[in-house]
Amino acid sequence: MPQQIVTVQRVLCQGPSDLSGVQQLVDQGLLDPRHIVAVMGKTEGNGCVNDHTRDFASMAWCHWLAPHLGCSPEEAHQRVALVMSGGTEGVLSPHFTVFSRQWVGAQAPSPTPRLVVGVAQTRDFAPWEMGRMAQIQATAQAVKAAMQEAQIEQAADVHFVQIKCPLLTMDKIRAAQQQGHDTVTHDTYESMGYSRAASALGVALALGEITPTQLSDEAVMRDMSLYSSTASASSGIELENNVVVVLGMSRAGQSNLAIAHTVMQDAIDARSVTQMLHACGLLNTSDTTGAEPTQLVNLLAKAEAAPSGKIRGTRHTMLDDSDINATRHARAAVGGVLASLTGQTALYVSGGAEHQGPAGGGPVCVIYQPGELCG
Amino acid sequence: MPQQIVTVQRVLCQGPSDLSGVQQLVDQGLLDPRHIVAVMGKTEGNGCVNDHTRDFASMAWCHWLAPHLGCSPEEAHQRVALVMSGGTEGVLSPHFTVFSRQWVGAQAPSPTPRLVVGVAQTRDFAPWEMGRMAQIQATAQAVKAAMQEAQIEQAADVHFVQIKCPLLTMDKIRAAQQQGHDTVTHDTYESMGYSRAASALGVALALGEITPTQLSDEAVMRDMSLYSSTASASSGIELENNVVVVLGMSRAGQSNLAIAHTVMQDAIDARSVTQMLHACGLLNTSDTTGAEPTQLVNLLAKAEAAPSGKIRGTRHTMLDDSDINATRHARAAVGGVLASLTGQTALYVSGGAEHQGPAGGGPVCVIYQPGELCG
Amino acid sequence: MPQQIVTVQRVLCQGPSDLSGVQQLVDQGLLDPRHIVAVMGKTEGNGCVNDHTRDFASMAWCHWLAPHLGCSPEEAHQRVALVMSGGTEGVLSPHFTVFSRQWVGAQAPSPTPRLVVGVAQTRDFAPWEMGRMAQIQATAQAVKAAMQEAQIEQAADVHFVQIKCPLLTMDKIRAAQQQGHDTVTHDTYESMGYSRAASALGVALALGEITPTQLSDEAVMRDMSLYSSTASASSGIELENNVVVVLGMSRAGQSNLAIAHTVMQDAIDARSVTQMLHACGLLNTSDTTGAEPTQLVNLLAKAEAAPSGKIRGTRHTMLDDSDINATRHARAAVGGVLASLTGQTALYVSGGAEHQGPAGGGPVCVIYQPGELCG
Amino acid sequence: MPQQIVTVQRVLCQGPSDLSGVQQLVDQGLLDPRHIVAVMGKTEGNGCVNDHTRDFASMAWCHWLAPHLGCSPEEAHQRVALVMSGGTEGVLSPHFTVFSRQWVGAQAPSPTPRLVVGVAQTRDFAPWEMGRMAQIQATAQAVKAAMQEAQIEQAADVHFVQIKCPLLTMDKIRAAQQQGHDTVTHDTYESMGYSRAASALGVALALGEITPTQLSDEAVMRDMSLYSSTASASSGIELENNVVVVLGMSRAGQSNLAIAHTVMQDAIDARSVTQMLHACGLLNTSDTTGAEPTQLVNLLAKAEAAPSGKIRGTRHTMLDDSDINATRHARAAVGGVLASLTGQTALYVSGGAEHQGPAGGGPVCVIYQPGELCG
Repeated sequence: MPQQIVTVQRVLCQGPSDLSGVQQLVDQGLLDPRHIVAVMGKTEGNGCVNDHTRDFASMAWCHWLAPHLGCSPEEAHQRVALVMSGGTEGVLSPHFTVFSRQWVGAQAPSPTPRLVVGVAQTRDFAPWEMGRMAQIQATAQAVKAAMQEAQIEQAADVHFVQIKCPLLTMDKIRAAQQQGHDTVTHDTYESMGYSRAASALGVALALGEITPTQLSDEAVMRDMSLYSSTASASSGIELENNVVVVLGMSRAGQSNLAIAHTVMQDAIDARSVTQMLHACGLLNTSDTTGAEPTQLVNLLAKAEAAPSGKIRGTRHTMLDDSDINATRHARAAVGGVLASLTGQTALYVSGGAEHQGPAGGGPVCVIYQPGELCG
Repeated sequence: MPQQIVTVQRVLCQGPSDLSGVQQLVDQGLLDPRHIVAVMGKTEGNGCVNDHTRDFASMAWCHWLAPHLGCSPEEAHQRVALVMSGGTEGVLSPHFTVFSRQWVGAQAPSPTPRLVVGVAQTRDFAPWEMGRMAQIQATAQAVKAAMQEAQIEQAADVHFVQIKCPLLTMDKIRAAQQQGHDTVTHDTYESMGYSRAASALGVALALGEITPTQLSDEAVMRDMSLYSSTASASSGIELENNVVVVLGMSRAGQSNLAIAHTVMQDAIDARSVTQMLHACGLLNTSDTTGAEPTQLVNLLAKAEAAPSGKIRGTRHTMLDDSDINATRHARAAVGGVLASLTGQTALYVSGGAEHQGPAGGGPVCVIYQPGELCG
Repeated sequence: MPQQIVTVQRVLCQGPSDLSGVQQLVDQGLLDPRHIVAVMGKTEGNGCVNDHTRDFASMAWCHWLAPHLGCSPEEAHQRVALVMSGGTEGVLSPHFTVFSRQWVGAQAPSPTPRLVVGVAQTRDFAPWEMGRMAQIQATAQAVKAAMQEAQIEQAADVHFVQIKCPLLTMDKIRAAQQQGHDTVTHDTYESMGYSRAASALGVALALGEITPTQLSDEAVMRDMSLYSSTASASSGIELENNVVVVLGMSRAGQSNLAIAHTVMQDAIDARSVTQMLHACGLLNTSDTTGAEPTQLVNLLAKAEAAPSGKIRGTRHTMLDDSDINATRHARAAVGGVLASLTGQTALYVSGGAEHQGPAGGGPVCVIYQPGELCG
Repeated sequence: MPQQIVTVQRVLCQGPSDLSGVQQLVDQGLLDPRHIVAVMGKTEGNGCVNDHTRDFASMAWCHWLAPHLGCSPEEAHQRVALVMSGGTEGVLSPHFTVFSRQWVGAQAPSPTPRLVVGVAQTRDFAPWEMGRMAQIQATAQAVKAAMQEAQIEQAADVHFVQIKCPLLTMDKIRAAQQQGHDTVTHDTYESMGYSRAASALGVALALGEITPTQLSDEAVMRDMSLYSSTASASSGIELENNVVVVLGMSRAGQSNLAIAHTVMQDAIDARSVTQMLHACGLLNTSDTTGAEPTQLVNLLAKAEAAPSGKIRGTRHTMLDDSDINATRHARAAVGGVLASLTGQTALYVSGGAEHQGPAGGGPVCVIYQPGELCG
């Protein structure tokens, strides 16, 4: 049984293209660029249609990786899963989470499960496939492929599935129309939600959280009782297919890291997150003002404005705001909640949680170093 | 010793001018409009220069109050302190907190201190006085007058001082220049900060938190080590003077409510708030999902983006964002934190905490019904 | 034949509720509030879902009108057509255009047609009727009723039809769902477009610009070849029905004013407007820097971002912008064009021109004093 | 006398990093990357502090240029003046204007003056030098150096001076404070205005439009009677010094292009621009709907919201808007005006015209092919 050693490093940055912190890790011998399999970035754009900071960060990464990998920047983009999520509203801090993986020859399985990572991609989607069954099914297949690559045995061992998915621009919508196809929506901003929704349903399908018979084009963005507890989808203008990164636990992993997850029932559900942190042996780090707890590598979370227009029965104004998009409000609020629980602000909080957790809530996972592996 | 009975009611609304919930309280015999001394509203505008929702709400209140008080809408505005704070970013919910006060004849002092309220106003300020010593000193006098009216004996018994203060518009700036005066700033948005800053320093001066010798025009917005732990200032386009509402504890009060306060050291300082809530015997209400705890009437808090550009040593992007003003980011984040601690979203979180708590933090008070007074 | 004398006055304001300029006209004997039939306001909000400046201005007008009309503010709202359009982006200046009408006994018809105005309202719409045939047909009936009231004999004499129409909020969308109805869209911002679209198609139907057989629920927002050359619809949160104001020419009018219209083919079509101004004997007033030409009362125009994503073949970015809504961009640009042609900035430029003029363009009318009537 | 041949090509793009149109010119043999001396780009960001589209475009250009120039991307940035101006509000279309220059051996001077271009750079500025005399004087020197390089004999032959200048971020402001220096402002957005202002005054000083005795730190952003009629400054986060590009006419030029300029007196001053276009023999191209006039290469213009708060005596709301920065409003409006005069939307309209033209107005230049050189 070949084994993988996964390293996860969180690196702060001064802007979307600032990789000086990453370079420093390389210079210090702490990171080998050839082992990088995925990067999850939080960049400081609006996280919506015209957020070019995601593409900007991706370009910087590709140009930085190319010489290390001995390939062109375009090929680097194919080899490493670059998931850039825009929006660091409120207290959130821009950063990159770098996933590296090293294969070691066949060894005895690890005595306890450890963090593993698997990656897969779908084919490119036609504009009219986005937000519909075609995207759902292709995503489900990619999730299974990524699980297999990660040597994760069962769905219960999957704790986070990050997906980067495309969106519709006016150009794509018109191109589809010229070819006689109607897209799922004519609104570019709305298309981001549809793409995330179909991606999340693909995860739920792959992990057995929902059954094929529950699914149809009509269920997307409508039947919010269908959701995945581990899916996190982020849509961006810079790609045409889905990139899938599966994070889970496996005895085929030799990492000193672990992962766990929970689901926030709504945007202010601190209790679920607190319970998860306690179960992982991570103290409420808001008590250690200023000190970065070495055990916590990062939280990865989804946030959204409750589509009901209410939180615990009381009206919110996020969905009626024409100055600030609802996803920006939601990231700011949930970012505040999670930062107050961990004492840290460089957290991955991504907007738009359609079918990712219950309506108004979202999945949260924690990557950490278990206490018995510290020291 | 004349005694006062203070009632505080939090009322949700569907828009800045929606007083149907207030009218319902009157219809049910739970509120007598003639006893209202102050209203603190959270309205759903941007909370910045061109936020007309504050003025809109004030107009609605004046027209509603006038027939009850038997006066004109303009006179109603003079009689009742209307403090409208714009901005319900993130999970926050628009609402009004209505303070009523009834005087009862000379009685024995209450066995334990209870919530009391006092109100005072300064004169109108000339544009060039805003953000400078003139505004500071007039505010300090008004705070003392309000304390006296409230029968609060000592500064330590003051737990919240809400101030509504004016701002500079381009018209006022030009008018000043035509009269040969330069205003403290030429930027309308920035003027809101200066006005809040001078108001807060006036509170600190009145309560002995700083000494007169520490103060000067130059200290405003510069020496952030000078601050008040109970001041909350909110600037708006609809007035030219400072309106001061002092909330505190006194044995001259017969209310069944109490008030306490703390200071958030930064935007994610949940610990200080948790300690305050515990000290008041208020359980962590995030455990009682969906149920509104009857003991908590409201939290009143100030929020701001850390002027250092960092929170616990890590960069935030609020001050460099030209799409969303920093005050909006800060309200969204702190609103999320406080809502996660109380399980409620109709909280009064106001932006711009210059000299109100330490840089990047802010005062928080809780109005509540002490356990022994619950039925 | 009873005759009407129409007066149109443009009044600047310092904010949504500032009626001091209107009061001044009354004090000077230039305006009798009892003759006011309609007010078209440009207020300084975002013109989108959460623009409360429209409602704020309406409330101010109702409270101002009530004592003059000897009725309640609510009744004043019923008697006078208050059309408040939000958004004064770029050079545009907030103002009110006040339409007054006096009836004089049966007289000989005017030798030449003059400006007349007619007003009508539809019933309230259910949320699921908005943006569909029900709204179209009710609007068409109201247009005909308004023409009749205005004594306009034929469709060719109609030069502008202003409609104020409702929008969907999250509350209305959910209420519809609870009653088993699906609304035309689940997006509040998008609902504004649907409501304007159905209203404009109602005008086109009434004026014979399109035939009943061309219309269906599906045509709304889709078949942009269907449009009216005189419709101007503005959606707002403050009403549930359509208010229709028809402006046209009739020999039953004794006004010293006239009205003409044209259609901008796209957002930069200065030529069409120049031709209209020349035909009306209005000089290119951009030559008279600083001097307000007494002959021009106002331009009333619609603006929109070309849904094709292109203007004269070149890409624009308005529809992909998630920070500023496309209607705001369009008002700013078209406002600049029209102001440069007239030398004036207090122009009525309203956003969202769905089915109002060709895609990407919009109707423009001019109200003016013909040269031969100048004194 | 060595002669230069200047080519200017306007290239549309689909995003900040899209250089496919530029590559196409190379592939067609119409552009030699080694001759490029400057690129003026309009990118689709907010044009304010956190507009990363400028830096993104610059990075794309550097990586594209590097292999052509046989140098590193960093060196390419040093060799070619990359001036990226953010903001394509309203009808404006993102594009690049590429200036190429070829030197030919000593020849007889051209019979008539032709377009020439000169480039120079200042040293890097310390944060506390920005917006003050140090930046003014260094800029004036660079302008003279660029004129000399361009072989422009006199100030009257200079028609446009484009400057790219730095801005203050919170990091730089704090760094200055730690070194005991106070910056000209503590507001990052405001710093952009100061940097543009000092740069423009440097141009005015170099061209003799103002005298040294009129200048001081205090005059910057205050004495708006001091201005240049040809300066265009654009501030960005991606550089620390001023880059100066001088465009003018000289008999040392062999180009088939010419340049002329005028000054818009305010944001709606179409007359001045019309006069310039007529004087250049360029027809009012708004008459030729859809057809791109081959003679017009581009307009380069500055726009700003009148700091007086009024345009031709009437209030505008740009400076009191806390949702959209005033520079964005101004670009949208002036872009509409200029597009309506030329029938084109890919125009270079840059925001923030402090000391660049009179208050509220700005310089405009036209690059074109004179009629006698067409054919």
